[in-house]
Amino acid sequence: MNPPTFEPRNPDFEARVRESFARQAAMHTLGATLAVVKPGQVEITLPWSEPLTQQHGFLHAGMVATALDSACGYAGFSLMASDAAVLTIVFKINLLAPAQGQSFRMVGTVIKPGRTVTVCEGHAYAIDGGREKLVATMGCTLMAVVGRDNIQG
Amino acid sequence: MNPPTFEPRNPDFEARVRESFARQAAMHTLGATLAVVKPGQVEITLPWSEPLTQQHGFLHAGMVATALDSACGYAGFSLMASDAAVLTIVFKINLLAPAQGQSFRMVGTVIKPGRTVTVCEGHAYAIDGGREKLVATMGCTLMAVVGRDNIQG
Amino acid sequence: MNPPTFEPRNPDFEARVRESFARQAAMHTLGATLAVVKPGQVEITLPWSEPLTQQHGFLHAGMVATALDSACGYAGFSLMASDAAVLTIVFKINLLAPAQGQSFRMVGTVIKPGRTVTVCEGHAYAIDGGREKLVATMGCTLMAVVGRDNIQG
Amino acid sequence: MNPPTFEPRNPDFEARVRESFARQAAMHTLGATLAVVKPGQVEITLPWSEPLTQQHGFLHAGMVATALDSACGYAGFSLMASDAAVLTIVFKINLLAPAQGQSFRMVGTVIKPGRTVTVCEGHAYAIDGGREKLVATMGCTLMAVVGRDNIQG
Repeated sequence: MNPPTFEPRNPDFEARVRESFARQAAMHTLGATLAVVKPGQVEITLPWSEPLTQQHGFLHAGMVATALDSACGYAGFSLMASDAAVLTIVFKINLLAPAQGQSFRMVGTVIKPGRTVTVCEGHAYAIDGGREKLVATMGCTLMAVVGRDNIQG
Repeated sequence: MNPPTFEPRNPDFEARVRESFARQAAMHTLGATLAVVKPGQVEITLPWSEPLTQQHGFLHAGMVATALDSACGYAGFSLMASDAAVLTIVFKINLLAPAQGQSFRMVGTVIKPGRTVTVCEGHAYAIDGGREKLVATMGCTLMAVVGRDNIQG
Repeated sequence: MNPPTFEPRNPDFEARVRESFARQAAMHTLGATLAVVKPGQVEITLPWSEPLTQQHGFLHAGMVATALDSACGYAGFSLMASDAAVLTIVFKINLLAPAQGQSFRMVGTVIKPGRTVTVCEGHAYAIDGGREKLVATMGCTLMAVVGRDNIQG
Repeated sequence: MNPPTFEPRNPDFEARVRESFARQAAMHTLGATLAVVKPGQVEITLPWSEPLTQQHGFLHAGMVATALDSACGYAGFSLMASDAAVLTIVFKINLLAPAQGQSFRMVGTVIKPGRTVTVCEGHAYAIDGGREKLVATMGCTLMAVVGRDNIQG
């Protein structure tokens, strides 16, 4: 999985991603921050936090999915035209191991960009005692939405 | 989608589900409550809440997934033996429409119970101005886990 | 799962579906026939056949997927405009039980039609000794393609 | 995506995979051959063939899925104990581009092996005029089945 080498259509892609991310209240709730924004690849980090856990004390699968979906969504968004908004159509997540650790790194990568439909992959890593472990993988299909007043950015 | 007619292995299934749900901190974060617990079917409700939203003000897809995953997980758990814990292996979510509304109803239903692997379907409904609309569907595959000390209930 | 009540955009939808199905060589290979074509719902039947089996003598999961994907694809196609072609973007299949039986009934149903993206569900039933059993479920996301010369119907 | 470095539990893994593959009638129907069998990775090749096509002359998505599912299944099987059979529980396939070409290379790779549940990834490449192109990706979840008389190998 080398870093993708995509040409962004919008030179301001990083500012657009950061501005939209800042408006995602769910990312504040997760304590998530944008670590990396490259054309076609976005990395989000978050600490373990009790309000995000399931009954065994691991990060809830849905919270892992929330961060991964945003990582994938913004990876796709980074390659979209400046008048497009991004919506997830469908995603699938494989939970390979309990999301156990002190912090988490969520990487979203574009596999195939498209004018309308973009396909991404996400990888969730738990950092536990200084060691990183792959705990989930996501496949995520996005749609670029243009010209809907209530859906911008 | 008629209500399933499954025979629970554990007559105390409802108490077990409610006790485990109460330990899911993520459900408190969502403001979610357990509305219905039947053998093989569980319904969770939650209000719209700003901390759960994405950049357009809709519920974040991952938050919809979090509630649906719990609904599916507990639907499966309701049919499991009393010494089993439940973990999600994989889920897929179709986002059919923006999760826009005052409150949300998440229904998880067992399609096929199994000793090790259980398959569920989830349906997410948004209630907006008194009208209910299907906004997401989930397919969710669960595993019953027995004999792991750190994974109970 | 009641039959959907969708209004076709194209009154000739059935002829279009049947004509396109006849051009799918893969359906001949499967011995598949079009049993039902309604707006938003298509049913395909096929007999068990040795060349379609996996190592245990059951229908290969991929062959079940082939028939279900066509059922879903044509269910979506039945609601599309007359200048649109249909392509599957992504599908997921749950294999609930071995595909064991004398014949198979594959039902594709539109869940949410859309101008660009359509979401369908598929259900595969095995008929074994006169009894019908659900053996697989599919979620299938389609795209309407317009204006590409090499992709028609 | 480096080749996986897994330790097979069964030193005869390659013979077991080849013997089981030979019993998959569906692979004969596809004209598929086993190109590579390593611990945790299997590669299947097949030529384009008219009986496998959809209405636009591309390989039918289900036929791509059939070959990829076998590649993933045998990748998982290569790491299983000698008394285990393999069944696919669920797979998801992203169709990134039309399956257009003279031949196809299907690579299945284990992401996470497990005693009961194994997770694999599949990548389908079309070879068209000497150039290779990624046309589909699969996520595939397998179950090891032990002790069922009608399911061996």
